[in-house]
Amino acid sequence: MAVNLHDAANELEKAIRQSDEYKQLQQLYNDVNADPAAKSMFDNFRQLQMNLQQKQMMGSEISEQEIQQAQATVALVQQNEKISRLMQAEQRMSMIIGELNQIIMKPLEELYGNL
Amino acid sequence: MAVNLHDAANELEKAIRQSDEYKQLQQLYNDVNADPAAKSMFDNFRQLQMNLQQKQMMGSEISEQEIQQAQATVALVQQNEKISRLMQAEQRMSMIIGELNQIIMKPLEELYGNL
Repeated sequence: MAVNLHDAANELEKAIRQSDEYKQLQQLYNDVNADPAAKSMFDNFRQLQMNLQQKQMMGSEISEQEIQQAQATVALVQQNEKISRLMQAEQRMSMIIGELNQIIMKPLEELYGNL
Repeated sequence: MAVNLHDAANELEKAIRQSDEYKQLQQLYNDVNADPAAKSMFDNFRQLQMNLQQKQMMGSEISEQEIQQAQATVALVQQNEKISRLMQAEQRMSMIIGELNQIIMKPLEELYGNL
């Protein structure tokens, strides 16, 4: 890979790392980690989420019951204020990453759009 | 989104656009586009590929026959030199995008790894 591509990616990495949104996400992660009850609740939630994603990727059917269980778990963990704030920060960060990707992928989109 | 994040993403977009790999990809796309036989072959291949990807995302089963048909189509289109060169350039570009993503996603990986 050419040096300037590498450098530009490193600059963007640094900008993400230094962004308010990332620092806040980091702080909120630490808050959850430092609270054993919140951490255990959040770990369980993450595990459930990963199991469902794995099923989805494997093309396995996800039952109505599993969807309801997942929704109930989301509702439960969001009652914990630390987790709820962390999840909101994750959502903001994921939107930013999406916007960055849209910018970066413009050259390729232009190509594919023309064919 | 903060201005410096936006600027850094734009710089990376520019670096991609100005990279030799992107310019070559663009040239090879144009070569295929300018050759009606190659273009029609490549369009068919793209359509087949998208149909399979869509099936996969929907969690539909892909039959042994469909896999064999896809493999036969790949083997066929690769015999066209313009298409074969384009596909190799696409692979190189896709590897570069993967490497760039790995760099950019480091801050988030560090977070998720710690929880």
